[in-house]
Amino acid sequence: MEQKTRIGVVGATGYVGMELVRILSGHPGFNLTCLVSHSHAGRLMSDIYPAFTRLADLPLQTLDPDQLATDCDLVITALPHGVSSKIVPQLLERGLKVLDHSGDFRYRDVSVYEKAYKLSHPCPELLQEAVYGLPELYRDAISRARLVANPGCYPTCSLLALKPLLENRLVKTEGIIIDAVSGISGAGRKADVAYSYCEAAENYKAYGIVGHRHTSEIEQECGYLAGLGQPLVVSFTPHLAPLKRGMLATVYADLLPDVQADRLQEAYLQAYENEYFIRLLPAGRSPETSHVAFSNFADISVQIDSRAGKAKVLCAIDNLGKGAAAQAVQSLNLMAGFSEGEGLKKPGHAL
Amino acid sequence: MEQKTRIGVVGATGYVGMELVRILSGHPGFNLTCLVSHSHAGRLMSDIYPAFTRLADLPLQTLDPDQLATDCDLVITALPHGVSSKIVPQLLERGLKVLDHSGDFRYRDVSVYEKAYKLSHPCPELLQEAVYGLPELYRDAISRARLVANPGCYPTCSLLALKPLLENRLVKTEGIIIDAVSGISGAGRKADVAYSYCEAAENYKAYGIVGHRHTSEIEQECGYLAGLGQPLVVSFTPHLAPLKRGMLATVYADLLPDVQADRLQEAYLQAYENEYFIRLLPAGRSPETSHVAFSNFADISVQIDSRAGKAKVLCAIDNLGKGAAAQAVQSLNLMAGFSEGEGLKKPGHAL
Amino acid sequence: MEQKTRIGVVGATGYVGMELVRILSGHPGFNLTCLVSHSHAGRLMSDIYPAFTRLADLPLQTLDPDQLATDCDLVITALPHGVSSKIVPQLLERGLKVLDHSGDFRYRDVSVYEKAYKLSHPCPELLQEAVYGLPELYRDAISRARLVANPGCYPTCSLLALKPLLENRLVKTEGIIIDAVSGISGAGRKADVAYSYCEAAENYKAYGIVGHRHTSEIEQECGYLAGLGQPLVVSFTPHLAPLKRGMLATVYADLLPDVQADRLQEAYLQAYENEYFIRLLPAGRSPETSHVAFSNFADISVQIDSRAGKAKVLCAIDNLGKGAAAQAVQSLNLMAGFSEGEGLKKPGHAL
Amino acid sequence: MEQKTRIGVVGATGYVGMELVRILSGHPGFNLTCLVSHSHAGRLMSDIYPAFTRLADLPLQTLDPDQLATDCDLVITALPHGVSSKIVPQLLERGLKVLDHSGDFRYRDVSVYEKAYKLSHPCPELLQEAVYGLPELYRDAISRARLVANPGCYPTCSLLALKPLLENRLVKTEGIIIDAVSGISGAGRKADVAYSYCEAAENYKAYGIVGHRHTSEIEQECGYLAGLGQPLVVSFTPHLAPLKRGMLATVYADLLPDVQADRLQEAYLQAYENEYFIRLLPAGRSPETSHVAFSNFADISVQIDSRAGKAKVLCAIDNLGKGAAAQAVQSLNLMAGFSEGEGLKKPGHAL
Repeated sequence: MEQKTRIGVVGATGYVGMELVRILSGHPGFNLTCLVSHSHAGRLMSDIYPAFTRLADLPLQTLDPDQLATDCDLVITALPHGVSSKIVPQLLERGLKVLDHSGDFRYRDVSVYEKAYKLSHPCPELLQEAVYGLPELYRDAISRARLVANPGCYPTCSLLALKPLLENRLVKTEGIIIDAVSGISGAGRKADVAYSYCEAAENYKAYGIVGHRHTSEIEQECGYLAGLGQPLVVSFTPHLAPLKRGMLATVYADLLPDVQADRLQEAYLQAYENEYFIRLLPAGRSPETSHVAFSNFADISVQIDSRAGKAKVLCAIDNLGKGAAAQAVQSLNLMAGFSEGEGLKKPGHAL
Repeated sequence: MEQKTRIGVVGATGYVGMELVRILSGHPGFNLTCLVSHSHAGRLMSDIYPAFTRLADLPLQTLDPDQLATDCDLVITALPHGVSSKIVPQLLERGLKVLDHSGDFRYRDVSVYEKAYKLSHPCPELLQEAVYGLPELYRDAISRARLVANPGCYPTCSLLALKPLLENRLVKTEGIIIDAVSGISGAGRKADVAYSYCEAAENYKAYGIVGHRHTSEIEQECGYLAGLGQPLVVSFTPHLAPLKRGMLATVYADLLPDVQADRLQEAYLQAYENEYFIRLLPAGRSPETSHVAFSNFADISVQIDSRAGKAKVLCAIDNLGKGAAAQAVQSLNLMAGFSEGEGLKKPGHAL
Repeated sequence: MEQKTRIGVVGATGYVGMELVRILSGHPGFNLTCLVSHSHAGRLMSDIYPAFTRLADLPLQTLDPDQLATDCDLVITALPHGVSSKIVPQLLERGLKVLDHSGDFRYRDVSVYEKAYKLSHPCPELLQEAVYGLPELYRDAISRARLVANPGCYPTCSLLALKPLLENRLVKTEGIIIDAVSGISGAGRKADVAYSYCEAAENYKAYGIVGHRHTSEIEQECGYLAGLGQPLVVSFTPHLAPLKRGMLATVYADLLPDVQADRLQEAYLQAYENEYFIRLLPAGRSPETSHVAFSNFADISVQIDSRAGKAKVLCAIDNLGKGAAAQAVQSLNLMAGFSEGEGLKKPGHAL
Repeated sequence: MEQKTRIGVVGATGYVGMELVRILSGHPGFNLTCLVSHSHAGRLMSDIYPAFTRLADLPLQTLDPDQLATDCDLVITALPHGVSSKIVPQLLERGLKVLDHSGDFRYRDVSVYEKAYKLSHPCPELLQEAVYGLPELYRDAISRARLVANPGCYPTCSLLALKPLLENRLVKTEGIIIDAVSGISGAGRKADVAYSYCEAAENYKAYGIVGHRHTSEIEQECGYLAGLGQPLVVSFTPHLAPLKRGMLATVYADLLPDVQADRLQEAYLQAYENEYFIRLLPAGRSPETSHVAFSNFADISVQIDSRAGKAKVLCAIDNLGKGAAAQAVQSLNLMAGFSEGEGLKKPGHAL
């Protein structure tokens, strides 16, 4: 790794941007050259995040696509949906490779996007080119991609749980339920009474109970996994727990007749035994969000509820890790020609 | 309420016992006369819970059924299962009315109990007499009962969510899923690394993923609600969130054909509009555990996921409140002939 | 208590206002008749605080002094400083008694106020009339007052700790240090990234390290307690801990020669043995904020650090309880002629 | 760094041991060869800390000094006091270098140790040889040491705050106050109701108010810093806040006449401008524990309270980082001849 790949982060002071800076500042292959922040341009990254003092202390700049093209080989856009779709084409035009964090390039069918996000898409032609950045599903395409759309956190967690079930046709495609919970950083860095310590600590609730945007993203990819010609309808309910970071999905699916526990275990083993960042738990152990916090790991357990005829699959990730920034780095490694796990094979926190 | 009913708590220093003491110490109809604690006999209640100093500062005694019979009209047993079934008969024999918090008297079919709790029941004849202490289901029987079995927290939360669906035959009886989360006080007051601050804060996990004891209790009562001659199989998954108190169940059921949103709302309104402690939330509002903490309220919302053909019902309670001690007081009010809400119509904490 | 005293809260949706509504809604002597909220007028109290549904569900009104004069006997103003001083005279003119929560009427010397708050006072003549609402110091004057200035939370906590030392001349008046910590609700109900769950949980810091406004308020009252003709200079440092509620002051003072432990204990006993809401802890026990949360209690322990020649006094209160709303109700009881502890002799939360 | 230094951890499953494993597993110069755990021998490190799966997954062994001598060049003992003093000599005898985490080798005067720890020391002769492992004070001696005693967390935090004041004779040596707070991991990994989530969350308290063991350790080193021939008496009060990790000391000292703010700033700048792991904060910024969590940094701010004639110095560290494991690695780097910051120049967590 003689020559480092120069990389920039647009939207560096949001939580995803912050976590990218944290991971990339210790990455042997990337050289962080540009941090762009609309709201804090002119200050240092460490003014906003003092933990970075002496470690990742770049100045925050305004967005200048020409400057990015001069200073970077690769750019990550960690911007709100509707903003990314305006900026990304300008970066691609200048010859940059881009990894985008928003929902703007995750869809194959523009009408599904426009319905879910209530926006008209300014560059739908890019949707055919963009690669859905879940390496466990699209590793090769990511390696060759000019534009990668980093998946949503809930979709990442749900799809990793469902992939072996759907690909192996072990469950009915109707009636799948995804009951999931996120830590509060999923809402982003914002001033809002609902996310204040006093109102969010010691509280638990559901939100977006029907019609959360990530539903359509999950359904698109489930459709592909199941080999359907269309999205696979699921029932998805997100919840909010008093955690800074962490996400857990509990997935329920009706087993097809004659699918037994050993067949189920075998499918998961086959799917994931060579995936470094997927850890299948031994029987009787349940994933815990603290075990994956600050890491790129997804911990998965699968069990049969035989009386109810259902598979129960649990998957835990860090919503800012495998659900956002760490997974982005996994894809960036592929895009830059590095080993897929470069800079990511570190323990999260045992405590 | 001229003459107060004398009441004793056996197991006063566990979290359920503590919450009972808190509620009963401010109750106009009951006079707390005895606090029994095996582990702390000889000390004051305020030695264990300094918050009670000057307010509920009785000495903690060893268990003496004769003394209880002398000093009390009613006794609450907040004991582990397997212990209650040995003590309760001794109290009943001495003419006391008893409300028991354990699983020992919640089952009609002793074989279901013995399988779930892996114990042989020493007095199965009492199972026919014991009344399941969920006032919204068994108000009249509770009023006349000599022995009330206070429901488990998960069953309370789940059954309140499901009652209108099952009684009105609005959903299929197969495939019901209950995905629920509890605060950590549900594990009781115990020294255990798994429940230590360092390991439990900022963590979220499932546990007892298949086969949690409360499943059989939920299934017994769902069977009655649905008018079946047998338990109704459900798939139940409990989770643990970093809350001291709080419980939320997200219930999924397949709607029968032609059941629309208005029929659903009507069923819930009809079931609960006269129930003081059940608050149906307006459309678009989701229950939050902090809104019911330290209270006897259950907040419920019901929605249709029409694409998936499912009803989603959410119910939030305080696992130590409506899920344990406050619900016990609701039943005790009925047993003692008081107004059902006596001592309970207080706001929990807005913060 | 045949006739209830009609009471209104101006600023009902802030955290102090909310806690006042919670306490007053269960108070036998007061009848909450008016809730005023500038920001939420036209909505119900339970829209902002759903925990109050069915319990304290008044409509929120705009401020109308004439209406308040018609509907109330007493008014509580829970408003920002600089706002209270404009509103309170209008209420007094209309014959209302007023308890104010801001700093606007806590000072005897207007120049000290104007320096601390960087405001010019519009009605300095009221400063002579206003009574500092710490019942353990000014019980009689509060009973007769037309205008009571509820103390700040830090001053309440600090002054209760210091009173026996200063009144009995047990310590040097130079060099007193007050190191204190507050829960996050002390910052009020506001949208601010610094108080968001993600930035405030699992974090601890100092703030206002030199020159916090409450310093001058503490110094004024310490001067009176010590019998000086002027404020007594202290060194005060506030900190912020990840608690919703709670405040603890650790006070250090240099013992005068020959003051021994028994003299110290005697002074505290004498000062507080007849004070219901002050609980002196036995030797070896330390106050904990959870023991006083949601209550009007102050728990105090005093110890000698003989090697250093210092008294260490610790005092724990709930910053919204004895530090704000509960203490206000204690004064309101006096103003309305009720028993001082009416509506307040309830356990906080053991958990 | 061609050849890695082989290193073992005795007491690997306590929190300090865990954090050592986390840091050392990513350290380029050390090769973790042995993990010893009395309580969990025979299991894998990842059985106790699943976050380490695939990353630091050594088997846990029983203690065998001969085996350690064969497999390691350096050994870290993270054991309780009284245990270390028995084990360490056995390791030294076998030619190993040792870094010990307990209080057993931190004292120069055995009688001070024996009074503070209420133990008789089995090998007092080692106290003269052992080096107090605070690199900012004893860098050179650590480099040459065979036995390093890692400082306590409170002493580390307090001494870094006080060093410039004492070395430069800027303050009186009488009357120094250290008011400090620790996160709960400071109590270690243990099953204890007092540290359970339900009792520790949302709670704040002092403990060991007079006579905490760390007082004597602080006093020994303050005596050296001040150039006294004896310990310098301080008044120290530790508190417990609901944090997993983090420590903040607020230090008060009486300024000598004519010491102004610029002299103070100059002293801190001179002491620390070349210290990578000490970050002096700009005026008006206060250290926050979250900014140093999971790192080896100490963030310090110094201010003058001119009215009271006092310096206020605040220092924040991670009690498991600079207060324990990370500081140990800083010393181990010196002992092994590596660059002092090797493996430690990483951002903690901005979130």
